[in-house]
Amino acid sequence: MSDTSGTPTGRVVLGANQYGKAECRLVRITRDTPVHEIDDLTVTSQLRGDFTACHTDGDNAGVVPTDTQKNTVNAFARDGVGAPEDFLLRLARHFTEGFEQVSGGRWEAQRHAWQRIPVDGAPHDHAFVRSGTHTRTAMVLVEDGETHVLGGLRDCTVLKSTGSEFHGFPRDRYTTLAETDDRILATSITAWWRYGAADPDALDFDALHAAVTATILETFAQVHSLALQQTVFECGKAVLEAFDEVAELRISCPNKHHFSVDLEPFGLDNPGEVFYAADRPYGLIEASVEREGVTPPAAVWAAVPGFV
Amino acid sequence: MSDTSGTPTGRVVLGANQYGKAECRLVRITRDTPVHEIDDLTVTSQLRGDFTACHTDGDNAGVVPTDTQKNTVNAFARDGVGAPEDFLLRLARHFTEGFEQVSGGRWEAQRHAWQRIPVDGAPHDHAFVRSGTHTRTAMVLVEDGETHVLGGLRDCTVLKSTGSEFHGFPRDRYTTLAETDDRILATSITAWWRYGAADPDALDFDALHAAVTATILETFAQVHSLALQQTVFECGKAVLEAFDEVAELRISCPNKHHFSVDLEPFGLDNPGEVFYAADRPYGLIEASVEREGVTPPAAVWAAVPGFV
Amino acid sequence: MSDTSGTPTGRVVLGANQYGKAECRLVRITRDTPVHEIDDLTVTSQLRGDFTACHTDGDNAGVVPTDTQKNTVNAFARDGVGAPEDFLLRLARHFTEGFEQVSGGRWEAQRHAWQRIPVDGAPHDHAFVRSGTHTRTAMVLVEDGETHVLGGLRDCTVLKSTGSEFHGFPRDRYTTLAETDDRILATSITAWWRYGAADPDALDFDALHAAVTATILETFAQVHSLALQQTVFECGKAVLEAFDEVAELRISCPNKHHFSVDLEPFGLDNPGEVFYAADRPYGLIEASVEREGVTPPAAVWAAVPGFV
Amino acid sequence: MSDTSGTPTGRVVLGANQYGKAECRLVRITRDTPVHEIDDLTVTSQLRGDFTACHTDGDNAGVVPTDTQKNTVNAFARDGVGAPEDFLLRLARHFTEGFEQVSGGRWEAQRHAWQRIPVDGAPHDHAFVRSGTHTRTAMVLVEDGETHVLGGLRDCTVLKSTGSEFHGFPRDRYTTLAETDDRILATSITAWWRYGAADPDALDFDALHAAVTATILETFAQVHSLALQQTVFECGKAVLEAFDEVAELRISCPNKHHFSVDLEPFGLDNPGEVFYAADRPYGLIEASVEREGVTPPAAVWAAVPGFV
Repeated sequence: MSDTSGTPTGRVVLGANQYGKAECRLVRITRDTPVHEIDDLTVTSQLRGDFTACHTDGDNAGVVPTDTQKNTVNAFARDGVGAPEDFLLRLARHFTEGFEQVSGGRWEAQRHAWQRIPVDGAPHDHAFVRSGTHTRTAMVLVEDGETHVLGGLRDCTVLKSTGSEFHGFPRDRYTTLAETDDRILATSITAWWRYGAADPDALDFDALHAAVTATILETFAQVHSLALQQTVFECGKAVLEAFDEVAELRISCPNKHHFSVDLEPFGLDNPGEVFYAADRPYGLIEASVEREGVTPPAAVWAAVPGFV
Repeated sequence: MSDTSGTPTGRVVLGANQYGKAECRLVRITRDTPVHEIDDLTVTSQLRGDFTACHTDGDNAGVVPTDTQKNTVNAFARDGVGAPEDFLLRLARHFTEGFEQVSGGRWEAQRHAWQRIPVDGAPHDHAFVRSGTHTRTAMVLVEDGETHVLGGLRDCTVLKSTGSEFHGFPRDRYTTLAETDDRILATSITAWWRYGAADPDALDFDALHAAVTATILETFAQVHSLALQQTVFECGKAVLEAFDEVAELRISCPNKHHFSVDLEPFGLDNPGEVFYAADRPYGLIEASVEREGVTPPAAVWAAVPGFV
Repeated sequence: MSDTSGTPTGRVVLGANQYGKAECRLVRITRDTPVHEIDDLTVTSQLRGDFTACHTDGDNAGVVPTDTQKNTVNAFARDGVGAPEDFLLRLARHFTEGFEQVSGGRWEAQRHAWQRIPVDGAPHDHAFVRSGTHTRTAMVLVEDGETHVLGGLRDCTVLKSTGSEFHGFPRDRYTTLAETDDRILATSITAWWRYGAADPDALDFDALHAAVTATILETFAQVHSLALQQTVFECGKAVLEAFDEVAELRISCPNKHHFSVDLEPFGLDNPGEVFYAADRPYGLIEASVEREGVTPPAAVWAAVPGFV
Repeated sequence: MSDTSGTPTGRVVLGANQYGKAECRLVRITRDTPVHEIDDLTVTSQLRGDFTACHTDGDNAGVVPTDTQKNTVNAFARDGVGAPEDFLLRLARHFTEGFEQVSGGRWEAQRHAWQRIPVDGAPHDHAFVRSGTHTRTAMVLVEDGETHVLGGLRDCTVLKSTGSEFHGFPRDRYTTLAETDDRILATSITAWWRYGAADPDALDFDALHAAVTATILETFAQVHSLALQQTVFECGKAVLEAFDEVAELRISCPNKHHFSVDLEPFGLDNPGEVFYAADRPYGLIEASVEREGVTPPAAVWAAVPGFV
């Protein structure tokens, strides 16, 4: 254990820092016609730049208040929201171009899904029910003069009732796990992917997000799994092969164990039918899937929560 | 403040009590054909009866272990699950008929919804994604020799972007709320309804649950609301009018406030477009909707969590 | 399964109902001297009475807005908070005496605990850290012209590392549980007790709450447990025997299972030292402990969430 | 937006990855004497190394099962737990020294606090109640042949009822926030610090953790705050100045807004006494406090969740 160090001077200094307003709960109704549209986002705005005086002396001359950041989120929504990635890009440009001391930042959104309530078989004009298979996420990171856009998803819980094996692993003194050639594979997918395009404004983020998500789900369904790691890698690989716009992808998957219940004491067999869904502990598989020759920008991925 | 009392003797005695195993996470795969089916339930079993000796003397001679109750849930699933209400009825009969000291109990289930992952436009045989607009709930209560069956739903978040007013309320010293003739109405519906049929085995609980739920959603969508109370009552009324099988219904709805954001300081108007979705505090509207002449059984509704 | 019924008329009517503002997050600083005091409460106010016209016709003439209820909570805090029970009594009187249509209601509070941050060994004047072993709860219920006051606690997690047995229970086809004469007993206590005094204003609720809580904790520690039911009953009994002011007590205790880990496969014994703390399922023990001859008022206990 | 790139080959490859068992709920009782001790930890073990074949081919020959990792956590607890940092170091050495393919990993623990239940004024031998002002955290990261040890805390909620100002910030079109020279400052501290010592086994982690935590709390209490950023920096600075063993510290603090309630509509003043504690949105202040000349190792801080 040793420091990656120069010569310590004894001075205590400010290192990396950011600040902002987290989890602004923004709902935007588009009501130009009787058929309303709803945008439901949780938006976080975080600024980076020269804020040393605030930390060391309580000098707020450069500190754009977090309250102002929230107000800006609301005011910008007046013009419409659009794709979350586009909305975050607008915020990013506003803050980095409008304030000299703001050199970068991190803007993140979760988009909550709604569908129209069906009435007599037809979707209602202005009544909605929360739904969906996942939460869509987006992030814009500005660092060192570069703007990075990421799409993602979370809380996407999937399960395969067969087509999953796990065997051939090493056994040591502490190994008791039985090998299996048929188990339930269940997880809750969290994924982030970076759009590598030179011009983010040229991308149709809504269409891309839907297509990437569908690819991940289809791959999960179709891969005959020998390990959750394999499934995870194949999901990422399928995305990178299908979408030139995606530079790399990181994926984090808890292995939500479904243990076969031993029914023998009750005089019953259990041919893969009755399972106990455990809460904790759980396996946790995390991987980055990349394009050979493309180095993922470290600053970007350090800003992605909960990953390797 | 006074006691509803007879003559206190000074003796401390056991009153109402129940015990059991809560939140058994049961997943049951039906795999008779390559097209698998999934039942994903959280099941709670609670027994009532003569358990005084256990409480007063630690005498467990009559105490069916909660572990045994869990085992029974698992073992019964070997034969299939079916409608949650039917599964709970099987459990209720097993425990009340099989153990002399068990005179009643409370069995509850939440059913978690899955849909098949679409692959090339077709639903996959054995790959699923968690989805749905709500969690289906069910309860069977046996008390005083009667068996009661309830259906329900929770976590059903709905929103109307117009068609909701609130005005005409009394104003006192502490009233600052402005009247409005157009607001967002949003809530998360929790409802329980009691099936009043003489023979529960004659009911198609799956079909009834789907139809009741659809009625609640449609009514929420269609009622022009002058108060959340009105919407809540109309939802219950619509169910009772449409379904003879339903004896009464209780519904609990937080008013998930969406406050219009004042954009005037930024030189912008806000014609019902930008809202802040607040977390707490929230309005809370709870009501029982009943059939005149039918007294809801108090023991049943005392067993429903979180209601009036 | 049959209705407790008169003659159904086919009319759908409003049954029991209440409405109000839930979870007002109130923080009140008393700063008369440099040594500040903090009251941190989550307050819920729910009104009962004649609100039929609102439900059936959207007529809000009698509907004291939930926003007004929140404002009243805040305004009343200006005069100080005091014991949560006393604060709720003030609210209850205000609403039931001030509005003809309000015949009763339910007011509930959670009190969050803080302690002073120690600086150089001395408690700081105005800096606090959230702490404590439980959340204190309180409830006032006005129904049928009577005012009932309850105290309670929740999220009080306790554990005994020995002094707990469980054996002598019946065994059936589904029983696999081994008997044990030494196990970990762990639970999270939720308790509510009703103060039976004729004049609630004569009670020192702060002192009583502290003493009742201490009695519950001491009893949990001291009872050699043959079943969690026994521990639960003894806790209630100790309170009723020690405090004439308490009419009855209800207690709900999940059995937070700590399973001894089988270390034999690793060549190790495990003499009650290594445990796995499970999340779900869990046992759930609920009981009312009462005074012989005193009938607990049903309306009160129906208003207590999550109990038998 | 551009890639940090070499020459893309079109090959999709595995990047950074780790896997393991998360949130093992370990409770360890030391019962050598009648005065028991309790260690209550949530432990996560994640391995890094050469696991490419598993991801690309489902070849598990090198994949130490997550189940084995959990078993190892339990088995190691048989010998006692000690300081969480020391326990994690044992795990780290076991896995990196025992398996050729394991080159590194990340081990994390949360330690849950218990205190003895007082009975007749004396602490009980074997009855405990969950308590404490925070959750202690620990992490060991092995990467590139180096072993790093971090201590931390989370869920430490603190509040100052005065001694906090916020003014002098820039105002733009979107700024509505009023300046204040007296506000409530409240936050929930999450902090991580890296121990920079050459030999971690020489450190008394329990004593250090208690002392660092006390320093953070004392500094929070004593700094007259002109911005939460200033408080955050001073907390870190105080730790680095007091403890040579700490190389750097990162701290993340939500600004838990307490808004003064406007009581004027009710004819009341509000001299800093009645506040509404808001949930969302909240400010979020994150900073690294460092020693000049010491570069924090990027791989370590990338493994810390939820930070800049």
